[in-house]
Amino acid sequence: MKIVIDAMGGDNAPFVTVEGAVEAVNSYDVNIILTGNQPLIEGELTKYEYPKEKIEIIHCSEQITNEDKPVISIRRKKDSSMVVGLKLVKEKKADAIISAGNTGALLAGGLLILGRIKGIDRPALAPVYPTTKGMSVLVDGGANADCKPRNFLEFGVMGSVYSEKVLSIKQPKVCTANIGIEEEKGNDVVKEAHKLCKEGPFNFQGNVEARDIPSGYADVIVCDGFTGNIILKLTEGLATSIFSLLKQEFVKNTFRKIGALLLKSGLKDFKERFDYTEYGGAPFLGVNGVLIKAHGSSDGKAIKNAVRQATKFVENKVIENIAEEITTLGADTIE
Amino acid sequence: MKIVIDAMGGDNAPFVTVEGAVEAVNSYDVNIILTGNQPLIEGELTKYEYPKEKIEIIHCSEQITNEDKPVISIRRKKDSSMVVGLKLVKEKKADAIISAGNTGALLAGGLLILGRIKGIDRPALAPVYPTTKGMSVLVDGGANADCKPRNFLEFGVMGSVYSEKVLSIKQPKVCTANIGIEEEKGNDVVKEAHKLCKEGPFNFQGNVEARDIPSGYADVIVCDGFTGNIILKLTEGLATSIFSLLKQEFVKNTFRKIGALLLKSGLKDFKERFDYTEYGGAPFLGVNGVLIKAHGSSDGKAIKNAVRQATKFVENKVIENIAEEITTLGADTIE
Repeated sequence: MKIVIDAMGGDNAPFVTVEGAVEAVNSYDVNIILTGNQPLIEGELTKYEYPKEKIEIIHCSEQITNEDKPVISIRRKKDSSMVVGLKLVKEKKADAIISAGNTGALLAGGLLILGRIKGIDRPALAPVYPTTKGMSVLVDGGANADCKPRNFLEFGVMGSVYSEKVLSIKQPKVCTANIGIEEEKGNDVVKEAHKLCKEGPFNFQGNVEARDIPSGYADVIVCDGFTGNIILKLTEGLATSIFSLLKQEFVKNTFRKIGALLLKSGLKDFKERFDYTEYGGAPFLGVNGVLIKAHGSSDGKAIKNAVRQATKFVENKVIENIAEEITTLGADTIE
Repeated sequence: MKIVIDAMGGDNAPFVTVEGAVEAVNSYDVNIILTGNQPLIEGELTKYEYPKEKIEIIHCSEQITNEDKPVISIRRKKDSSMVVGLKLVKEKKADAIISAGNTGALLAGGLLILGRIKGIDRPALAPVYPTTKGMSVLVDGGANADCKPRNFLEFGVMGSVYSEKVLSIKQPKVCTANIGIEEEKGNDVVKEAHKLCKEGPFNFQGNVEARDIPSGYADVIVCDGFTGNIILKLTEGLATSIFSLLKQEFVKNTFRKIGALLLKSGLKDFKERFDYTEYGGAPFLGVNGVLIKAHGSSDGKAIKNAVRQATKFVENKVIENIAEEITTLGADTIE
């Protein structure tokens, strides 16, 4: 299997992208193509031991930065590490692409270069959400701020296939994120979405209230990208605030300081549950190719885990499965 | 000043409502009217010491339960503790009402009996949101699942007045909850709302991302009731999950158990920051009368704090101030 890593994407590129690539080829049965500035990448690669034949470099003269406008940069920067990488997947010269670069550009590139799976109106980001039970998937995690009811149905199909095939959850429980569990609750779009999802080809279990998301009540949480982004970012902000508040309380006197010392490993174990680097990246579900968006501040471990995630995605034919499931909806019902 | 407490509202009525009323008259310069089942209330009152002339009972033969349909119950149960209480405020026989009862019915009752302040299209719930810095206000906390851009502007006016007059925050920073800080981010409604709020008669500071809400970046967070409910409930659920995860980690070995013991008071101080009973209830801003929704599971302390909050609301003329500010918007612009 061949996975492209956009070597120039992310806050710490190409250091961490190269590190992740090396860790991946040393851990998994996979070949990596690094797209980007060849001299820079080669310089980084000299630091590591790895089977040379498993990493290939394709030189690119351009780079898309976080300041670039999404659609324009994809159209104009034809020789950027991101565009070249996406084309390799499009032309079946690679099985998947991972990028920690400009999210907007990557989503635009996915749509423009890979295209959509037939029957999918709106591809969606599907980040993992760590819960007290394990992990849920959130679809849409932020690609589409405004959604039609039909989009929720597609999100349910895609999230369910992904949860089953990549996260190995049997008959994943799909729920619409809502402000009450009763069917008649919600805003107008979610109310309509609920009706459609009830007839969807997945294990739909009605609404989930936001208070029940962290305990893992739903395996797949379906929502528009606005709500998904609020859920993800609020979780991130709250975890950070709670840690900083705990720290404040824990240094207020000597007893507490000793207590905190004894709990150090416990707090570390706890923090790790919220560590996104464990979970790889968020796939952009619904495009016609395996595309994984890694966090901008990913480290080598996160990139390596994104590679493992991509291999499972390919091996378990997630795209083919989505394409098949989606035909059962009747593509003609897209408004 | 006279404050009505709906003695029959809430999970533990009339025990905690009577307890809260007694604590309030013993703490503040205030008179309380308890609406509800007279024999039950009198029975409870015999348990306490308090100045008898400061608590009055108005007997009601009916009660609105959590199972009742909002609008129907307000229209039909004319002699319920909630409807009778609201009418006392409407007829200026009392200055404010507090209820821990059926939220939907209370909001419907507020609209139907008290009516709206002239120029306000949609009244909104404004719960306090505890942050690492202190407290913010969230408007709308859940009254209106679907909102028009103009409603956000009204929420900004009302939230700003409430924050300044009741929470004593000078020139409160008002922000729209959004998925990015840039002006062009968001769904269609929020983008339009942002444009209107820029011209609003308050200290508008653009968008706040959900990740920055827990640190208190904004004093007033303006959003539709769907988003507001998601923010509140997710915070509640996450705090609960994080405590339970911490507990799991803290009993894994003896060292940790000792550590946790030494930190017990620290953890308690920490938990108190998330204790809603400290903050009273959520006012229903925009109705023409002071109406405070207390949490269904309020205890006596929460009811007492809601009384304090109501007195500040009345003393600082929040309604008159909102009515005045709202005229500057031009009421005729309501679509």
